Parts: sequence; C-alpha cells; structure tokens
Amino acid sequence: MDTLSIVALLYGPDQRGLVARVAGWIFDNEGNILHADQHRDPEENIFFQRVEWIQPGNIATVRRVADAFAIMAREKLGMTVRVALSHEVPRIGALVSKVPHCLQDIAYKSKRGEIRGELACVVSNQTELQAFCASISLPFHHVEPQGCDNRGAEDALLEIFRLYKVDLIIMARYTQVLSSHFLQSASIPVISIHHSFLPAFPGGRPYQQAYSRGVKLIGATAHYAAPSADKGPIIAQDVVRISQRHSIADLIEKGRDLEQLVLAQAVRLHLENRVLSYNNRTVVFD
Amino acid sequence: MDTLSIVALLYGPDQRGLVARVAGWIFDNEGNILHADQHRDPEENIFFQRVEWIQPGNIATVRRVADAFAIMAREKLGMTVRVALSHEVPRIGALVSKVPHCLQDIAYKSKRGEIRGELACVVSNQTELQAFCASISLPFHHVEPQGCDNRGAEDALLEIFRLYKVDLIIMARYTQVLSSHFLQSASIPVISIHHSFLPAFPGGRPYQQAYSRGVKLIGATAHYAAPSADKGPIIAQDVVRISQRHSIADLIEKGRDLEQLVLAQAVRLHLENRVLSYNNRTVVFD
Amino acid sequence: MDTLSIVALLYGPDQRGLVARVAGWIFDNEGNILHADQHRDPEENIFFQRVEWIQPGNIATVRRVADAFAIMAREKLGMTVRVALSHEVPRIGALVSKVPHCLQDIAYKSKRGEIRGELACVVSNQTELQAFCASISLPFHHVEPQGCDNRGAEDALLEIFRLYKVDLIIMARYTQVLSSHFLQSASIPVISIHHSFLPAFPGGRPYQQAYSRGVKLIGATAHYAAPSADKGPIIAQDVVRISQRHSIADLIEKGRDLEQLVLAQAVRLHLENRVLSYNNRTVVFD
Amino acid sequence: MDTLSIVALLYGPDQRGLVARVAGWIFDNEGNILHADQHRDPEENIFFQRVEWIQPGNIATVRRVADAFAIMAREKLGMTVRVALSHEVPRIGALVSKVPHCLQDIAYKSKRGEIRGELACVVSNQTELQAFCASISLPFHHVEPQGCDNRGAEDALLEIFRLYKVDLIIMARYTQVLSSHFLQSASIPVISIHHSFLPAFPGGRPYQQAYSRGVKLIGATAHYAAPSADKGPIIAQDVVRISQRHSIADLIEKGRDLEQLVLAQAVRLHLENRVLSYNNRTVVFD
Repeated sequence: MDTLSIVALLYGPDQRGLVARVAGWIFDNEGNILHADQHRDPEENIFFQRVEWIQPGNIATVRRVADAFAIMAREKLGMTVRVALSHEVPRIGALVSKVPHCLQDIAYKSKRGEIRGELACVVSNQTELQAFCASISLPFHHVEPQGCDNRGAEDALLEIFRLYKVDLIIMARYTQVLSSHFLQSASIPVISIHHSFLPAFPGGRPYQQAYSRGVKLIGATAHYAAPSADKGPIIAQDVVRISQRHSIADLIEKGRDLEQLVLAQAVRLHLENRVLSYNNRTVVFD
Repeated sequence: MDTLSIVALLYGPDQRGLVARVAGWIFDNEGNILHADQHRDPEENIFFQRVEWIQPGNIATVRRVADAFAIMAREKLGMTVRVALSHEVPRIGALVSKVPHCLQDIAYKSKRGEIRGELACVVSNQTELQAFCASISLPFHHVEPQGCDNRGAEDALLEIFRLYKVDLIIMARYTQVLSSHFLQSASIPVISIHHSFLPAFPGGRPYQQAYSRGVKLIGATAHYAAPSADKGPIIAQDVVRISQRHSIADLIEKGRDLEQLVLAQAVRLHLENRVLSYNNRTVVFD
Repeated sequence: MDTLSIVALLYGPDQRGLVARVAGWIFDNEGNILHADQHRDPEENIFFQRVEWIQPGNIATVRRVADAFAIMAREKLGMTVRVALSHEVPRIGALVSKVPHCLQDIAYKSKRGEIRGELACVVSNQTELQAFCASISLPFHHVEPQGCDNRGAEDALLEIFRLYKVDLIIMARYTQVLSSHFLQSASIPVISIHHSFLPAFPGGRPYQQAYSRGVKLIGATAHYAAPSADKGPIIAQDVVRISQRHSIADLIEKGRDLEQLVLAQAVRLHLENRVLSYNNRTVVFD
Repeated sequence: MDTLSIVALLYGPDQRGLVARVAGWIFDNEGNILHADQHRDPEENIFFQRVEWIQPGNIATVRRVADAFAIMAREKLGMTVRVALSHEVPRIGALVSKVPHCLQDIAYKSKRGEIRGELACVVSNQTELQAFCASISLPFHHVEPQGCDNRGAEDALLEIFRLYKVDLIIMARYTQVLSSHFLQSASIPVISIHHSFLPAFPGGRPYQQAYSRGVKLIGATAHYAAPSADKGPIIAQDVVRISQRHSIADLIEKGRDLEQLVLAQAVRLHLENRVLSYNNRTVVFD
C-alpha cells in the first residue's frame, strides 16, 4: 500500500469537545479518518481514543505530522499519547523455557505475515528450544538463571533485548517471574500468557487446580506483565469446555491450543495499537 | 435520570471531515458526546455513525436540537439519519402462533425493564397464547389467516398495530411469511427469529434439517423481515454445540433457549438504536 | 409413552467386569439398554455409571425391578446407587429473594414441560415476588430471616418443603447462605446459581469484582449447595464476552440471561438423573 | 506405558443384550474395560459402540485377542468393526496447495506428540511449501494437476501414499476436489477442512460469501471427503464471532486460526478412534 496512515492512542481527563478537536485537527492537516473509536470511563472521568487516519505525503512528512499530533494532544488536550506509523514493523523478543507451542505459533505467524511484527530473537533459561530456533534461523540465547537474586541474569536479558532493538517482549510460557526492576528497566511492554482463566487459578499448575475444583470450562489469559505475577492488565481471555471425560493430560492438551490462540490474539491487538492500559485494566479497540 | 440524551444513527457517502463536522456541530450546540462510533464500508465508500450525547435543557428544547441535528445531517452532510431521545419508550407489537417461549421471554423482559420498550399488544393466527396474555393483562387479538390471498388478514394486522401506535413489530415464532405489501405498508421495522444458523437451513423444520446433515452446532438467527423469507439483514446469531447424543427433540429444546436469547439480543440492540441496515446487511454498534 | 424405563446412577470402587455384570443383570431381567455411560476416576479408582433401560411391565412390576437392581448394585457390586422411573415427576421448591428472572424462567419452563419437574412452591425472605406467584397460582410463603442465629427460620423452610413433598430445592438468586444444619436436615439436593465463573469472584457483588479486575469474559456457575458458600460441586458453567464498552449495569444485564440459562441447564441435568457428585466434583452424563 | 490396550469401534443392527455380550466377552478374555460408550440411532435402529480395554500380555498375544474380538463382533453380533492397538502409530499423508498454516500446525503437533500419528509425507499441486518441508526434513512431492481428466495425477498421488504406507490422508487446504475413483482406490479415510460453517457457504471463496451475506459468526468444518465436494460426514465444527469492523481480510485471518484448530481436532478424534461414520453423518465418542 502506497498511502501511509497514522494510528494514535490517547487517554486523559475527559472534557467537552475532545472528539471535535481531534477530528478537527486531523481535518485541518489534510488527514482522512479511517477509524475513530472513543471510550469513556464514567467513574474515573477518563477519555480514551484510538484514531487511525490516512495522511498524504512521504515518510518524512507523515512522521512530522504524527509528531505534531502527539505534541498537540499532550499540550493542548492534556492527553497521554502514543503514535505509530503504518509502515513501521515492531520487533519482538521472546522469553521461553521448555514448552515449544507458543513460540512456534508466534514464529510461524510472524513469518507468514499474520502478525504485524518481526520476531527478532529468543532468550531462554533452558536449552530445549535452541534446535527449533536454529532450524528457522532465529537467534537464540541461553541465559542461566541465578537463583534468589536474579538481578545479573535479568541484566543479561535486558542487554540482549537492547542489542536486538526489541519493541515488545513476549513471555511464551516462560517459567520465571520478572522483577519490577526488569520491567522498569526494559521500559517496553511485556505480554505474558497464563494458562488459566484469571483470576481463577493463579500461580503454578493451573490445570491441576482446575481439575481438582471440577470446573466445566478451562481458560487462558494474556496480560501485560506486572511485578506481582498473574496480576497485570488483562488483554485477552478465552475458554474451552471440559468434562469428567478429560484427564489432567487432556486439559493440558486442550489448554495448549487455547494458550497459543489467546497469546497470538493479544500480540496482534497490541501490535495493531489497539490496547490502552490504565488502572490495571485495558481498553481494547477491536 | 434528569439529564436528557440524544442518539443519532446516520449513514451516507463518505467524505473527508465527517467526524469533525458532526462532533463540531454537537459541541457548538452545547452537547457533550458520550459515545461516537464510526464505521466505513471501504468497498461501497459508505460512512456509518452512531453518536450519543448529553444535551442540556428540557424535553422540548432537546427535541428541537435533535430535529435540528437531523436536518443538518441530511442537508449539509448528505446522510440518511434517525434520531431518538433517551426518555422516549418505543412500543412493541408481537406476532405469535402457538409456541410460547419467545413471547413469554420478551413479555417478562419488558415488564422487568430489561429491554427499553413496552410490549403493547399481541396478535396471533392461533388462540393458544390468549390465556397467557390475559394472565398478565396484555391485549391479545386473534386474526384468522385467509389462505392464498392473505391481504385481508394482513390489513387487519396493520390496523391493530396502528391502533396500538406500535414502533416495532416482533415475529416471535410466527408461522406465516409477511408479504412485501405488509412490510411496506407497516413502514416500521419488523424483527423475526429463525431457528437455524442462516443461511444454513432456511425454510421449514430447520432442526430436522440440521439433524439429517449431522452438523455439530445448531444456531438461531434474528433478522429484519424481508419479502423473501429468511433473507433479511441479520442482526444477531448464536450457536450451541450438539452431538449424536441429541435427538431432534433435544435439538428443539436446546434451540428454544437459543432462539429466545438471540431474539432478545436483537430486540435490545434495535431498541437502543444500535442497528443500521443497508444492502441487506447490518452495522451493529454494540 | 406407554413403555416404562428406569435410570440408575451408580458409583463405587472400580473392579474388573462391572460393565458386564450390570448389562448382564438387565439382560437377564428382560430389560433393553437405551444408554449406558461409564466413567472412571483413575486416580481415585472409582467407577461411575448411568444406565437407562426399557423395562417391560406395568408400574408396579417396573418399580420392583428397579428396587431389585438397586439392591443387587449395592450388595453384589458395592456401589452407591440411585434409581428413578421415567413416569415419576419430581417436585421442586424454590428459594428466592427479590430478583425475579431465574424464578420466572424455571416457572415457565416447568409449565411448558421443558424441564422434567413440577414447581410446587416458592419460599422467600422478601415479599416482592408474591404477586408474580399469585398470577400463576403458585404457592408462595414468606419466611422472615432472623439475623445471626437463623435456625428458627431455617426450620420453617424445612417444614414448608416437607409439606409440599419437595424432591429438589433451587436457590434462584436467594441471598442467604444455608447452614450445614439445613442442608443435612433437608436431605434432598439443593442447587444454587452463583453469578460468576467460580472460583473467580466468589461472595458478594461478583459483577463489580469482574469489572474492577478487567476480565474479558463474565460467567455463571450452578452448583450443589455446600455449607461453605460458593464451594459446592459445580454442575454447569458458561461465560459471555464483555469489553470496556460494558458498564457494571451492562454486566448485570448480560449476566441475568446467563444465570437463568446455566441454572435451567443444571436443573434439567439433575432432573434427568445425569449428575453424580463425589469429592466436591460432579460427573455429568450429558 | 507398558500395559497394552485395545480400542474397538463397532456398529450394526441393534438387538437386546449387545452391551452385555461385548462386556462379557472382554471379561472372559481377561480384559479390563477403561471406557465403553454406546450410542443408538433410534430411527435407523443402529447400535454404535466404542470400547477401550486394557489387555494383559505382549504385543503378539494382544494382537490375537484384538483379532478374535473383531471376528466375534462380526460373526456373532453382526457388527461392522474396526480394532486398533494402543502402541501402533498411524501414518499420515498430507495434500496441500499454497496455504501453509494447516500443514505447519499438523506438522508441529505431530512432532510434539500432540496428535497420535506421524506425518509421513506431503504431496502438493504447487511448490510453495517445499522449502518448509525441507526445513523439517519432511518428504515433499510435487504432482502437477492435469486439467479435466485428472486420473493420471490422482494415480500418482495414490502411488506416493502407498509408498509411504499412509493410513490417513489430510487435505490441509488442498484446492482440488478428489474424484470418487481416487477415494475408492485409496480405501483409507480422507479428512478435509472447509473454511465455512457447512452447509452454509459451500464451494469457493466462503469468507467472501459470509461477508456478503452479513453473518455474525464465521465457521470452519472438518469432514471426511466425499465424491461431491463439501458434502461428506462432518467430524468437527466451530465458529468465531465477527462484526462489521472486520473486512474480508480480517475474516480470512480469523478463519485461519479456526481452520487449523478444527482440522487438528478432527484429526485427533480420528486418530484416537473416536469417530464412526454412517449415512453421511458421524458418531463422535469424545
């Protein structure tokens, strides 16, 4: 596609006339709005918007318009704002352990162009997935965890992700919890997949917990990582029906498909700039 | 709620600046936008919008603003437009035959305030549901069908619905097809429920058809009535899983819950002014 | 249907040959098996079976065969067993508070023959639903709760349910927790509906909890009542998708349909003798 | 697992005592039933059973017991019967064209042991997927289609599948219809995935058809191939919700995940010997 477009995600204190001012600015700057979704949190009085518009011009001029929009939204409207250009492809770093299915799914979706991002590198606290990465020429790094104080290992992770200029980190069934030091230092979003319908069954062995409780549906939850495990803002969730005919092994198998589906869905939404998070919740413009 | 709000549904040829002009007009007229959803059909180049805003003033002044908006949207923006005021409660007429569940569900949802409409009267080509209507003091009229040329019976229906000042007609498992004469003369929307996942299994006995074909899911479809049966714009659909363990009688039972759910969902969406139809499809702002 | 059938639900320690012995006994006693579902809990080594068969003869002879089967299963096979005859219609007592939708749904499903049970009486700690019960000639009793020690009120409930010879109690959005004294004295099953996807959001105001946590699906759970609230064996669960577009009021509305659907599903399964509970879980032969 | 087990799938004219005779034979031959599911088609008076049992002994003796069971079921009970041994791993041949996702999913599920079958070879009427197959050392054969009379090309396919001793053929988004000559000559099951909720939208470009009709759910259907395209017995189906916000490109993307999920589900069910087909329908013991 030759035409370039801009996506802006913004939120801040609600006030009368915001929709008109945003749309008016874009109109005055020759843009043509493709989609404009608003949301209001009436309790918190916060305004949220995702607006996507076609902007005439070359890459440099479109970049300038996007930056000017961000400044206007911040200074004139009091909004927190993020802008992205349609031709930029974000780079993804993956954290994995032993389980391959989520990584393989993201890797193939990235290769087939089904998600708007390029898988740039994989880092693992194990070595099992090295061979798979080699087979598709995907850089793989092994970083040994260091027990209680994991600061050194985390710094190594940060170093690797910086080296590959990663814009997003995906925890694709990574078995360690990242510290708040890591999350702050990384200063890029981190998406994790938990294999339960949170907040039911947080922590370890959720399928065993689900089996013991005798639930009739199992779930998976993709969320932004937060310092306390399984507590971050939820991006996507789904469930699948089970019965007594399913053993724990069956739940794990059924869950695998679900995990990879829900993770891919969350990654897509994020990469298409459809997710805003605030107050430990998300607004998803889908 | 003391504050009054206006909902406008509009669509027409797309042009640059529409979002800005609608939002600007509302801002200039003291309104405060609560929700504004846009949609574009890029193939047909049509713009669709649902905008809901708080309008200060009493009923008379708010009515005047709503009318002024409609005139502006029509004449200045070239849009087809419909406006509704938050305090107005639409009146519903139901067409039924023998099967009670859809009527009973709508009747109770209306009484409990779960749908924004008042069930004003019931008309039937049978007499089975007269006792139920009497038990909840709901006016019931029996209109005998007249075989091939049903014009006379249909005129009687039209007469009754006009008498009760009905804004919406619901076919709650009504067994006759309405002619295009009826649909044109009524000049109000008619919502029908079909007990299959259209376009699979149109026409009669859909559960038997589904059973014979061996499908693994059965469905229900609520749509606006059109002169050719089961062909109108689809408003809502849902499905439920079945297996060989289910007989045709089981499908009918499972389907009943689904039909009433899907019909209620479509009626709610319509009454909240969330549905626009064009080119035999709908745009649903949900 | 003139032919009579028997349903037996049995469970107990697994041993080789159980399926053959049950099927052989029925064959020797002139029965013709319609359905026979088995389940095994391999961890606990428990065998579960639901077997339904056509039994020639009149009501008295069929009753004798059913009783003989129960004795054989208990004494020869070491099973816990329950038998039911196809022509017997269980009687239901409902406990309600102010919210009408679950009661109304069960009442109409019972009247329309959509569940295999007769709603015999309603008992409430409030008076709001008295008028509805009167309108469909359904006995209604008001029992005032008594604060901390609710023993007297619970004894009144038990007395009423015994008077109406109730076989099953349904808590149709009843706002009080029943004591273990009540549950033991009643000695009949009690089914409750909780308006969340348990074990997420137990206790009060689950929709508010779901809203605060920012989940993307809300649920409902029907379970057998247990002395600790929201902890009993789960019979049925379902979920519905939500987004930031839904306020708490919207969640409550969407949840209402789900609650009544899930409760009706659990009640149907129970009344068709498809549910066995053990170790705080259920085996559902559906 | 050291213990060996046998699965038998049988169906035929119903008669009193079948369950008892099957269970009795297994008991007499030292087997221990793990699962026994029956189904009856009351209209056609056909009995269906899947029975799985632990059989003591080594591979040779267990094979003999399985063969003896098959002979007994055929000759004494008049059943059509298929037996499989737990330690045998079926071999799969895949037919593909250009679209990679279904093949890649099956390939990785097979490698990760998530389906009980080994992907033995891939045959394509195109060359796009050759590189992928090479990267995972999976034999790939290109067979040029021959236009109207495709007999020669089909014979080449048959030859290749025989060479690789394939037990099951999967059409993983293969764009040609197989002739009844092929299906009869192959004499092994062929599973196909159609990218719609059949019988809605058979034939080509189903997502375009779904978009035009304005449905609110899109689906995928896995079925056994039959001489007339998209008409064979349905094994698995699922749907996903869409709205006007989704373009045809979005439907294709959402559909991709669904197709691969539904195909994998059908392949699993088949490989675990859970599917019986008759009268163009399936009985699925899940």
